[in-house]
Amino acid sequence: MEYKIGTDARCAVIGYGSWATAIVGLLAANGRRVGWYVRNPEVLESLCSDGRNPRYLNDLEFDRNSIAPSSDLDAVVRDADIVILATPSAYLKDFLAPLTVPLRDKFVVSAIKGIVPGDYQTVVEYIHDHYGLSYRQIGLVTGPSHAEEVSRGKLSYLTVVCADPENARRIGERFAGENIRLSYSADLYGVEYAAILKNIYALSVGIAVGLGYGDNFLAVLIANAAGEMTRFLEESYPDERNTQVSAYLGDLLVTCYSTYSRNRRLGLLIGHGCTVKSALNEMTMVAEGYFAADCIRHINFRHRVDMPIADMVYRVLYEGASARRCMQELTTKLI
Amino acid sequence: MEYKIGTDARCAVIGYGSWATAIVGLLAANGRRVGWYVRNPEVLESLCSDGRNPRYLNDLEFDRNSIAPSSDLDAVVRDADIVILATPSAYLKDFLAPLTVPLRDKFVVSAIKGIVPGDYQTVVEYIHDHYGLSYRQIGLVTGPSHAEEVSRGKLSYLTVVCADPENARRIGERFAGENIRLSYSADLYGVEYAAILKNIYALSVGIAVGLGYGDNFLAVLIANAAGEMTRFLEESYPDERNTQVSAYLGDLLVTCYSTYSRNRRLGLLIGHGCTVKSALNEMTMVAEGYFAADCIRHINFRHRVDMPIADMVYRVLYEGASARRCMQELTTKLI
Repeated sequence: MEYKIGTDARCAVIGYGSWATAIVGLLAANGRRVGWYVRNPEVLESLCSDGRNPRYLNDLEFDRNSIAPSSDLDAVVRDADIVILATPSAYLKDFLAPLTVPLRDKFVVSAIKGIVPGDYQTVVEYIHDHYGLSYRQIGLVTGPSHAEEVSRGKLSYLTVVCADPENARRIGERFAGENIRLSYSADLYGVEYAAILKNIYALSVGIAVGLGYGDNFLAVLIANAAGEMTRFLEESYPDERNTQVSAYLGDLLVTCYSTYSRNRRLGLLIGHGCTVKSALNEMTMVAEGYFAADCIRHINFRHRVDMPIADMVYRVLYEGASARRCMQELTTKLI
Repeated sequence: MEYKIGTDARCAVIGYGSWATAIVGLLAANGRRVGWYVRNPEVLESLCSDGRNPRYLNDLEFDRNSIAPSSDLDAVVRDADIVILATPSAYLKDFLAPLTVPLRDKFVVSAIKGIVPGDYQTVVEYIHDHYGLSYRQIGLVTGPSHAEEVSRGKLSYLTVVCADPENARRIGERFAGENIRLSYSADLYGVEYAAILKNIYALSVGIAVGLGYGDNFLAVLIANAAGEMTRFLEESYPDERNTQVSAYLGDLLVTCYSTYSRNRRLGLLIGHGCTVKSALNEMTMVAEGYFAADCIRHINFRHRVDMPIADMVYRVLYEGASARRCMQELTTKLI
């Protein structure tokens, strides 16, 4: 089915975390009022009364005429043409559970970088399968984008991915701003899997740091992770793609080198000697890489791509293997 | 001309900086006494009396039987089969000036990552042209290798590059150690140019940081630098090479993300608003990227590869262009 986004399409955002909030900030600066599904009562009230999200990016003050926060998911979706998903991937199902309005006449954009736990599916695949949307009605917004930097106006690059380039541009216009550079791509599969894989690799970097490996090794690990990502994409879904751009390698780098990354932090705790269980308990939110490692392992049964780094992370997280020993073994497989 | 390195080949190192010292440390742990040309009298005396280099890696204590430091370049070269160059690239000519013994029956290994200033040549090209060695007698040792980490026993990866894989392995044996992983390659051209280009890119990263750009942008810049490096190599010297490994991307990453990099530091000063002249004056040693930017520009007149990042660095360093304006322009060319 063809689906053409109109120039006057209305946007709505699902989620109230830092990335969702930064996205609403960008959209709100570009014209039409942004629908915003906020299920947390405290956040909702503060947005309505004060124009601020008290939990995330509290510095960002919204003009209250530019946003329409609501706890009524059906109403938010009903009033929108483009529905932007920006929840943590682990809670996407929860967030969408109250929905009774059909999604299938909307254009859905995932700003989520992760796996839907339990289904071994990416967000795009999940929306396609469970809500009856064609792949031509689903897009991605991605890029190396710490929400904090985006909301503080630090120059950031976003890549909009849609099968139809015209739709991609329509969506891009909504995100445009002085401090945003936009790129476009039609590689839904590759960009989404790259964004998922990078969380596994950030976890491996955390493990290495926790075990005491130095910068020389981290550079080798991350270079090989980039190679492993490219190999996985090429072998599982061949396409003419250059992965040495912001949406693939850029996103990998910002996540692997950021000391704020949840995935890196989970790896660090494990590298320091925590059990996986206690490391998970220490985290306020489950790191996406945790689910991603299991999912990629499962998917790769089919493709059989050589993925020594992702395998190492899986064995440490799910098979109780010693992080020290697995990392030592991995060092003999990198080049 | 075929040249086969024997199992009992004797090694000598030229240079006394941190990388030269770390290399002697690796070689000295593997058997035969290492010849070592040290032209600095203070360093030479301390090495002879105390087994330490007082200027660099002072913690590293050499068994005095394992090294043969000398200020007689001819004698050092005469007694060696493999001559390893580890001077700053800017001073290579100076270091070799006293040499009267012919080099052409030796195997020369460059551990230098830079350009020979004034000649628009890499070290390999310079040795080939000025000392009459065939390319089969010249090799490289490279990799993401902060000398400090190597000498402290942090796991590091070295890549030995020779036309003949057997020679590469013979050289590799000399560098082997518990905390060294060795890779081999025959891509003399690609590996050497990658090591040169990375210094230009580290300079661009310094400029961006100095101008106040954030982590999101740095990731985009470095991803695009990796792409630019790959493109330059592919278009100027096509070969079957995977650049997402330690010798290419790994080396780029460790240099670009290291806050100790001289190149990054030079860029930082310029980004902060220093003139190029005063920034160069502030540095105790000229950053390799400074010469590299000029040389690559010159070489690329022939190949005409699209290199927006290297061009930006050139214009800032050599044409007095405004760093702020050039970087702003560059941001519109990255993807």
